[in-house]
Amino acid sequence: MPEFSRSHEEVNALLGYLQEISDLAALGALADWDQNTALPEEAGDVRGAQLATLRGVLHERWTAPELGRLIARLEKVVEHEPFTDADRALVREARREHEKATRLPRSLVEEMARVEAASFEAWRRAREQNDFASFAPWLSRTVALQREVADRYGYRETRYDALLDLFEPDLTVRKLDALFAPVREVSLSLLKRIQESGRNIDASCLYGHFPVAQQDALCKRLLEALGYNFKRGGLAHSPHPFTTSFGSPVDVRLTIHPQENFIASAVMATIHEGGHALYEQGCAFTLLRTPLAGGASMGVHESQSRLWENYIGSSEPFWQGHFHLLRAAFPEHFATIDAATFSRALNKVEPSLIRIEADEVTYNLHIIIRYELERELINGELAVESLPRLWNARYREYLGIEPDSDTNGVLQDVHWTSGFGYFPSYTLGNLYAAQIYYTLRQTFADFDERLAGGDTSFILDWLRQHMYIYGMIYLPEDLIQRVTGEMPDARYFARYLNEKFGRLYELTN
Amino acid sequence: MPEFSRSHEEVNALLGYLQEISDLAALGALADWDQNTALPEEAGDVRGAQLATLRGVLHERWTAPELGRLIARLEKVVEHEPFTDADRALVREARREHEKATRLPRSLVEEMARVEAASFEAWRRAREQNDFASFAPWLSRTVALQREVADRYGYRETRYDALLDLFEPDLTVRKLDALFAPVREVSLSLLKRIQESGRNIDASCLYGHFPVAQQDALCKRLLEALGYNFKRGGLAHSPHPFTTSFGSPVDVRLTIHPQENFIASAVMATIHEGGHALYEQGCAFTLLRTPLAGGASMGVHESQSRLWENYIGSSEPFWQGHFHLLRAAFPEHFATIDAATFSRALNKVEPSLIRIEADEVTYNLHIIIRYELERELINGELAVESLPRLWNARYREYLGIEPDSDTNGVLQDVHWTSGFGYFPSYTLGNLYAAQIYYTLRQTFADFDERLAGGDTSFILDWLRQHMYIYGMIYLPEDLIQRVTGEMPDARYFARYLNEKFGRLYELTN
Repeated sequence: MPEFSRSHEEVNALLGYLQEISDLAALGALADWDQNTALPEEAGDVRGAQLATLRGVLHERWTAPELGRLIARLEKVVEHEPFTDADRALVREARREHEKATRLPRSLVEEMARVEAASFEAWRRAREQNDFASFAPWLSRTVALQREVADRYGYRETRYDALLDLFEPDLTVRKLDALFAPVREVSLSLLKRIQESGRNIDASCLYGHFPVAQQDALCKRLLEALGYNFKRGGLAHSPHPFTTSFGSPVDVRLTIHPQENFIASAVMATIHEGGHALYEQGCAFTLLRTPLAGGASMGVHESQSRLWENYIGSSEPFWQGHFHLLRAAFPEHFATIDAATFSRALNKVEPSLIRIEADEVTYNLHIIIRYELERELINGELAVESLPRLWNARYREYLGIEPDSDTNGVLQDVHWTSGFGYFPSYTLGNLYAAQIYYTLRQTFADFDERLAGGDTSFILDWLRQHMYIYGMIYLPEDLIQRVTGEMPDARYFARYLNEKFGRLYELTN
Repeated sequence: MPEFSRSHEEVNALLGYLQEISDLAALGALADWDQNTALPEEAGDVRGAQLATLRGVLHERWTAPELGRLIARLEKVVEHEPFTDADRALVREARREHEKATRLPRSLVEEMARVEAASFEAWRRAREQNDFASFAPWLSRTVALQREVADRYGYRETRYDALLDLFEPDLTVRKLDALFAPVREVSLSLLKRIQESGRNIDASCLYGHFPVAQQDALCKRLLEALGYNFKRGGLAHSPHPFTTSFGSPVDVRLTIHPQENFIASAVMATIHEGGHALYEQGCAFTLLRTPLAGGASMGVHESQSRLWENYIGSSEPFWQGHFHLLRAAFPEHFATIDAATFSRALNKVEPSLIRIEADEVTYNLHIIIRYELERELINGELAVESLPRLWNARYREYLGIEPDSDTNGVLQDVHWTSGFGYFPSYTLGNLYAAQIYYTLRQTFADFDERLAGGDTSFILDWLRQHMYIYGMIYLPEDLIQRVTGEMPDARYFARYLNEKFGRLYELTN
């Protein structure tokens, strides 16, 4: 169990300081949660003002010279015994946030909040009306602000590195390009082989009439089966599924967005968000109310949502073990369908325009397209006005299909109304997940048998003990190495994709 | 429409300062709302820590010398033209909160938060186990803290005045005693006459099987019929119904606690909380994000919940106009029941042990008992240990019944785990409500006919225009005088009670 040296006066002072910040940040997270699940239609502006005020207070606290002095004093001693990994991580994260905050003037932080709110509204209207031109000025403003932010944060090689680092500490374009090249290669070649095989998967069993209340009950049972603790969390609806926590493992909530005619949406979102939630709930209680509670990074977080969703939750053995839940919830619909048919349907490969609906083979191509485009925007190699044209060209090049409208293309999601640099986390998560998956399979020789028996607790226990408990104590690469024994390596992902979809589509070679 | 002199530099500075405070307070209200509607079971301690931190930040802001200087400068000029009533109220409320905060040291505020949390737990257990002795030490601690708070705030005549003033500015024991004497008298004599009449009301039509989902839908329709705006609010469940807003009229939410076998609980809570909510939603938009948004005081707030619940919502004309909603929700149950029978049932008089279930005739006796007891506790005339004995004695004296256990007596609700001085607001609210009710009846000669026709919008429009729009600009007595043309006067309540229940119970004289 990670422990802080609470008897050390300055560690204790830092903890006290950061706990207050953590409490205030948790109230911000609560405001976000509420905005997505319950906020009345006409209260958006007032909530925006509340969040801006809170952001100001947090900026004030993070930039306090008193905090800077405390960090500096601790940095001199904390590397050595008897200080713990938790102490060192606390000082490291405090330094990181203190630096980030002091490098951005409060006026810039406030300007970003204003532009983000206005940009969100502009995007919403533009998407409705398929009118990229009306969104372009706001996107340009966001790009300009993100460039300024990157310059203020600083970077060694390329400006985009500064933004990557916000979501994945120490990640760079150089590292990403090395990881992404084999991903692009395996995705493209596998897609080609699947398409050339002429084989098709029938996914019709996912469609029908599934009343929302029964979907909710089913998703609750699925979460309980995975080991999610409802005494430390809850399930709600929101337009886009997400998971949030409030600075502690004792309050980790998730949302779904059930579709009445399509069961896969809520079920797979439940397992995906459930993965995030299991990770958060597994964090050591000793890290509660500190910046170290939660996941190591966004990439590592996505590794857990994708591990549970794809590597475990879309597999046939998993559904052998859990199909009775589907049958109990919708007895008529699933009377003549079996686990194998259902899990095959979940894994149907088909290039599509919308990232969040993509299969595992094409998913990372969506990410790579966006990564390339936003890196080019930030580094000044691409004008906002050319974005739709280039977007469509790359979809044709990578996926062989082209959006019929910007609404289904460059305007499809909200990401570019705020920060840049997040997308790569998704693919990084897939890579980490593959590596962890093979570690698990190697650790548990009877992995598939246990899954087919309805057991996933052996996975959760192992991950808790080797990974979840540490929260943000270890940096992503370090953590992956501790969990898998190796540095992040894209080969596991290539192997996984080829094995799984080779088998599903009966590809030779 | 109330307006601030925003072009005046110091008014503007004060507004900016108070808007930030209002935003932070709104996040606290959100945390409370969430705690009552969604917080996971095991997250209570962490939420407590978050709220304590926020309380500290708010204390810091309210006590800032910079704020004190701003208030002092404005106080010199604000009484005169061209400053507005809104400006004056802003300075008045800022002074009030600044004084209150500076008179309590932060250590006392924190100690109160700790004792409150522990006392709540002790009360919960004591109530479960009917064990007042285990709660007594915590109640003693709370009494001691409340006495200290009162002494620090200061008072002119009696210590309890200092606590009354927190919920009802300028209210004193002297004023209360003058208002409460006729209330006690009319309640006791009316109860006696009803009991001696031997007449009884059959309330069996309120009992049956009412599935919660249908109750929710019914309550939504009722709220819409009353003029509550769901684009600026929402309805949820909580163990105890309440209404909250977040520093603005654009986000005003309420809760109910439906009972599956008893329809009156959710329906009347909906109208009661709806009254609070209509008041909050009616506040002028110009007061948004300031301490002036919301109701004038707790007493004035209760006047609106009680006005809508009792004076309007339990009347026969109202149900003539709205019975179709009950029938639509529960067609079988209400097939052979009519509006007259239903509204009579709602008004059945029967002395009971539990305040929140009390009828209008006995309700204020519950309040008066508690007012007397807590005044005696605060003024040092009563030892905590004697409380259960005295409680039971006064219930026998006033209501003619006696609790069989402390669980149904002195431990019945949570109020005495935190502050003292709130209870009188309930009765004060009933008095204000009666006075406003007769003003409305005088203004609208066809009051009952309009109600019976299903219209309540004329009431809401009038109240908005004459009362709601002003938020907290006017002090309670001033506001009541503006709305009704007279100072608060208990005679209206006595008249209302005698008229209504005289008719219902066919009392002669």
